[in-house]
Amino acid sequence: MRLRLLTTASKQLRLGNRQRHRLLATSASGQHQQEHQEYQPGGSRALYAAAAVGGIGAGYWLFHELDKKRRQPVELAQPQKATSSPVALDAEEAARLWHKTKRTDLPTYSVEDVLKHDKPETGIWVTYGIGVYDVTEFAPNHPGGDKIMMAAGNAIDPFWAIYQQHNTLDVLELLESFRIGNLNKLEAIENDELGSPWAQEPKRHELLKPASKRPFNAEPPISMLGEHFYTPNELFYVRNHLPVPCISAEDYELELEVEAGAGKSSKCTFNLDDIKKLPKHTVTAAIMCGGNRRSEMTRIKPVKGLSWGAGAVGNAKWSGARLCDVLRAQGVEPDEHLQVIFEGADLDPTAHPYGASIPLSKALDPRGDVVLAYEMNGQPLTRDHGYPIRVIVPGTVGARNVKWLTRIVVADHESDSHWQQNDYKGFSPSTDWDTVDFGKAQAIQAMPVTSAICSPMPEERVKVDKGHITVYGYAWSGGGRRIERVDLTNDGGKTWHVAKLEQEKEPDGRHYGWSLWSIRLPVTDEQQKQSELEIWAKAVDSAYNVQPESFENIWNLRGVLANAYHKVKVKLI
Amino acid sequence: MRLRLLTTASKQLRLGNRQRHRLLATSASGQHQQEHQEYQPGGSRALYAAAAVGGIGAGYWLFHELDKKRRQPVELAQPQKATSSPVALDAEEAARLWHKTKRTDLPTYSVEDVLKHDKPETGIWVTYGIGVYDVTEFAPNHPGGDKIMMAAGNAIDPFWAIYQQHNTLDVLELLESFRIGNLNKLEAIENDELGSPWAQEPKRHELLKPASKRPFNAEPPISMLGEHFYTPNELFYVRNHLPVPCISAEDYELELEVEAGAGKSSKCTFNLDDIKKLPKHTVTAAIMCGGNRRSEMTRIKPVKGLSWGAGAVGNAKWSGARLCDVLRAQGVEPDEHLQVIFEGADLDPTAHPYGASIPLSKALDPRGDVVLAYEMNGQPLTRDHGYPIRVIVPGTVGARNVKWLTRIVVADHESDSHWQQNDYKGFSPSTDWDTVDFGKAQAIQAMPVTSAICSPMPEERVKVDKGHITVYGYAWSGGGRRIERVDLTNDGGKTWHVAKLEQEKEPDGRHYGWSLWSIRLPVTDEQQKQSELEIWAKAVDSAYNVQPESFENIWNLRGVLANAYHKVKVKLI
Repeated sequence: MRLRLLTTASKQLRLGNRQRHRLLATSASGQHQQEHQEYQPGGSRALYAAAAVGGIGAGYWLFHELDKKRRQPVELAQPQKATSSPVALDAEEAARLWHKTKRTDLPTYSVEDVLKHDKPETGIWVTYGIGVYDVTEFAPNHPGGDKIMMAAGNAIDPFWAIYQQHNTLDVLELLESFRIGNLNKLEAIENDELGSPWAQEPKRHELLKPASKRPFNAEPPISMLGEHFYTPNELFYVRNHLPVPCISAEDYELELEVEAGAGKSSKCTFNLDDIKKLPKHTVTAAIMCGGNRRSEMTRIKPVKGLSWGAGAVGNAKWSGARLCDVLRAQGVEPDEHLQVIFEGADLDPTAHPYGASIPLSKALDPRGDVVLAYEMNGQPLTRDHGYPIRVIVPGTVGARNVKWLTRIVVADHESDSHWQQNDYKGFSPSTDWDTVDFGKAQAIQAMPVTSAICSPMPEERVKVDKGHITVYGYAWSGGGRRIERVDLTNDGGKTWHVAKLEQEKEPDGRHYGWSLWSIRLPVTDEQQKQSELEIWAKAVDSAYNVQPESFENIWNLRGVLANAYHKVKVKLI
Repeated sequence: MRLRLLTTASKQLRLGNRQRHRLLATSASGQHQQEHQEYQPGGSRALYAAAAVGGIGAGYWLFHELDKKRRQPVELAQPQKATSSPVALDAEEAARLWHKTKRTDLPTYSVEDVLKHDKPETGIWVTYGIGVYDVTEFAPNHPGGDKIMMAAGNAIDPFWAIYQQHNTLDVLELLESFRIGNLNKLEAIENDELGSPWAQEPKRHELLKPASKRPFNAEPPISMLGEHFYTPNELFYVRNHLPVPCISAEDYELELEVEAGAGKSSKCTFNLDDIKKLPKHTVTAAIMCGGNRRSEMTRIKPVKGLSWGAGAVGNAKWSGARLCDVLRAQGVEPDEHLQVIFEGADLDPTAHPYGASIPLSKALDPRGDVVLAYEMNGQPLTRDHGYPIRVIVPGTVGARNVKWLTRIVVADHESDSHWQQNDYKGFSPSTDWDTVDFGKAQAIQAMPVTSAICSPMPEERVKVDKGHITVYGYAWSGGGRRIERVDLTNDGGKTWHVAKLEQEKEPDGRHYGWSLWSIRLPVTDEQQKQSELEIWAKAVDSAYNVQPESFENIWNLRGVLANAYHKVKVKLI
């Protein structure tokens, strides 16, 4: 049973481990099919919202805001809190309206006013609905610890939609007692002109923190990431290189050209139905951006690239047709010299598509599990994740998992795209922009072993419980290598503690999903006195490869492959 | 062109890069077939003896001393030094007898006397034939640098047999000028009683430095290791767990039993001819002991195990039948849950054979290149290397490459042997013999990325040439992962320099051979003044996994997987 830091207002509100979350999702294809989906993660996934907590049939939601106008609160079938009296229900129902109601006795603030109050020095303000609250004095006592700081100067709405234990009378009353004003919510609707390539970007979940908006690149808060064995689709990081194309299921076509090797000179086209008629194969695979954790590397010396935290990774079940079946059907035979090139429907300003390639040996290997995926965690792909087809290349850097796949070429050379040739490659720490020769390094395919501490967060104040603190995170290695072990230390490596792993039972070499890990890490009396503690995590994969200790010696000018020990400094309380 | 530190007496004696070495080998099976073999290593292999140097048809040899009585000098066809006059030839011929001749004017010393003189403080003595020489004052001026110290207190014979440039009149005269006595060579013939399991151990090359004698475990000097892309068979490290069995080609039988999965309950037997009749497949693979470089790890904190240096690895071409062909012919189909168990003819005192296992997926994969090898570098296997059949599992720790293979079982479980279950596994640095649970760790299969500096050696005095020193070594990663890069630093990681690689063109995932690397490493004036320098090497493989920086955080109680940066301190002259 994995241990979790629960963001609870009081102990009795902790969610039962068996409670599951119903996720409301809309197809991002614009067809707006509302479907219920039951997540059944490997272990005791508790928090990703519960179907009923606090005993009231209250509206709550958690879905892609494809179209705000279409968003509606959804009524739960039945109150489930047996002890709830009608009186209590009435009081809670009333309390749930407070944050939607203007308090005429209080001043009005703009979003900008609130934004300025994001740390203890300036005061910590948050908003909920149209309520503005000063939680400066409450923050140190927040039962969920410093997680409250994720919303400092900002809205708590998206967090409370997930951490449903806040939706009780007690908590709502407490919040209202901090109220200092009303929010003047002038929503700056970022409408691009018609005809702009950005005009039809999909709406994204509020919790995805953008590293860049155009193209859209964003990651979820990592403390949430580490709570779900299968990353909820709407919290899955988004890495787009170009504007998101609009593709309808009806118009979709995938071209396959065999340009070299056996099956040479054949060409054929598949529509979405053709692909769906092929045997359906499901593989669990973590997809990780080559620049995940770049923000840690850049502290050593600046690098070029989006400043990703440790959240540019997600783990999902991908379903679709196996690429090996498709290729074999076209007469393609194993040939060590050939590559498979993928092109997306996303175009750069010169009308060149995003492109990448992988060795044919990976594509043809049934154990390689490369799929032309049309489903992610049992749902149709959303537009941000490649609707209608994304090629999933398990164990391989995200950049080769081409979205909006429209063309496959079997060729005797790699993709000549910028992203294959002049990006996503590793170099020595002493290679700089004056000396770099992208032709000399190999395009990243399988990724090296890595891990991250999802909780506690850096600078978080952590409660010591009977001489221990709870730490959890993820670990993953490329190439289908299973995680063998995750070791933690809080004394600079003098003593190491082995974390408990949660992982699928897939065999090594085909273990493409990530592993979650957790540990109750012992803290000495001495350490408690010093109050500050640095926690290090290092993962070991099935080839007994281990993360490097520090970023200094793996630094590279593009800030990719940032897989050094994850080190997090926390404060003990 | 790779750069090499040449052990030369004078510059004009350097061997041409094109010169190759003829190796005289005896089959270790006791059949004593003397065969000539031409090595054609990948790059500019210069030193491993040359067919003719110095212009005389002198007897020289380099072969397994299976039976000393049978050893005979071999005449080379023709003198090749055009400038040699008959007079010079006569003088050299005479000089070549000096070390075989007793000098009545000098005292006689025992092997033990010589052994005590192995460092400058005690004086440095060496022997050659029956000559004893005091080279204390010469050693600092040895053109080959501190490599002379490999023979301190010992015989130079095996080194000179390889570094043929010593066999010239000038050098022989110089040596004789250091003569201080005659060696009383009372050869302690280690004859075991008849019936002892050790009675029939093969003879080994003198340069193999034993880590243990019974069972025999030995590695070559690593400066030599790094000179040959394909490790000469007689210099290939030997890792035996038990006495070497005696198997004749006629009596050899290999049993294959399919105990689980498709083909279940079939059983068949192959003799050597059956195996040789199958299609012959050759794969270049480095084999590495799980404990390679343990001696470095043990410096941090003692570990249990043989104290291997960095020489418990070798690279060879292995030829034989592909295991996947053999298994397919028996109806074995892919099944992720099955294992292939190997048993050797070597028996422990309770009559249990050495055993190991690998996943069936590796055995069945044509890209896995598992072979039932009967040849090593084009020669029949020697007894020490598994005659007549060793299973070669490329990319996988040496321990699974079972020698004297007599039984293969396709089973639903791993080998229950000690070596699979309770050895060759990795643990956290804080796991000790009180807390270790071998059941909780995965048996090592694919090995992690590693590298070693073969030259210069630790404490070697290295000449700075135009602001540079020459450094070379090997790098390898398990699982068929190609070496992408080897980085060197001599300023603690402030600046890194990328070495030149020599490697086969095999595709990634199937790149089982090692890579040799070399570099002219710049040395600053500042560093030259300080005279001591520490060189670090780190390799990066195709999954961009990198060696860990230090042994502290990868220490494990068995001292396996010792793949931290290789750090060598040298003295500059």
